[in-house]
Amino acid sequence: MKTTILPTLQLDRIIHEKGRMAIMSLLAASPELSFTEMRDTLSMTDGNLSVHLKTLQEAGYVAVTKSYRDRKPLTTCTLTKTGREAFTTYINLLEQIVRQARGE
Amino acid sequence: MKTTILPTLQLDRIIHEKGRMAIMSLLAASPELSFTEMRDTLSMTDGNLSVHLKTLQEAGYVAVTKSYRDRKPLTTCTLTKTGREAFTTYINLLEQIVRQARGE
Repeated sequence: MKTTILPTLQLDRIIHEKGRMAIMSLLAASPELSFTEMRDTLSMTDGNLSVHLKTLQEAGYVAVTKSYRDRKPLTTCTLTKTGREAFTTYINLLEQIVRQARGE
Repeated sequence: MKTTILPTLQLDRIIHEKGRMAIMSLLAASPELSFTEMRDTLSMTDGNLSVHLKTLQEAGYVAVTKSYRDRKPLTTCTLTKTGREAFTTYINLLEQIVRQARGE
């Protein structure tokens, strides 16, 4: 029975929160994304997205770059190598959980 | 891009918490389990397991039965029909998330 729940208990708490999981999924599918693109796609408030990004940045999963485009401030985010590895591990665990739930 | 994150945002918050996800996974694989079996398998404290079970019970996902066996109190838990359906929906969403993360 132990094997059934092991992958669940191993899930990375940083990524497992729904909002951060959505952010990581978006970033895993793009080389980089701007703050506003993410905010609009996820329908998050600025504050909510900022807090999640800060958590992901502190975990070393996301790199945030502040610059200017057309004289306007531009914040872009990318997954770090560590972040991509953590996301891959997370997704592999989800796959195990799905298989076990299906009795495979 | 929307399609990438939609399943994540649809995940049932009640089930998504790791401890409850582990409980639901266990119960989905057994007709019924005693409180002590679950506690020992999950290495949870009595208090922690009780709180999670209460949340799952209030959501209508788990039925808790208190009885006696060999004159000792026995608490057993089963998934309700609603709980099984919610877990199936949750697992289907996880599968979509895994597929999208793999670019399928």
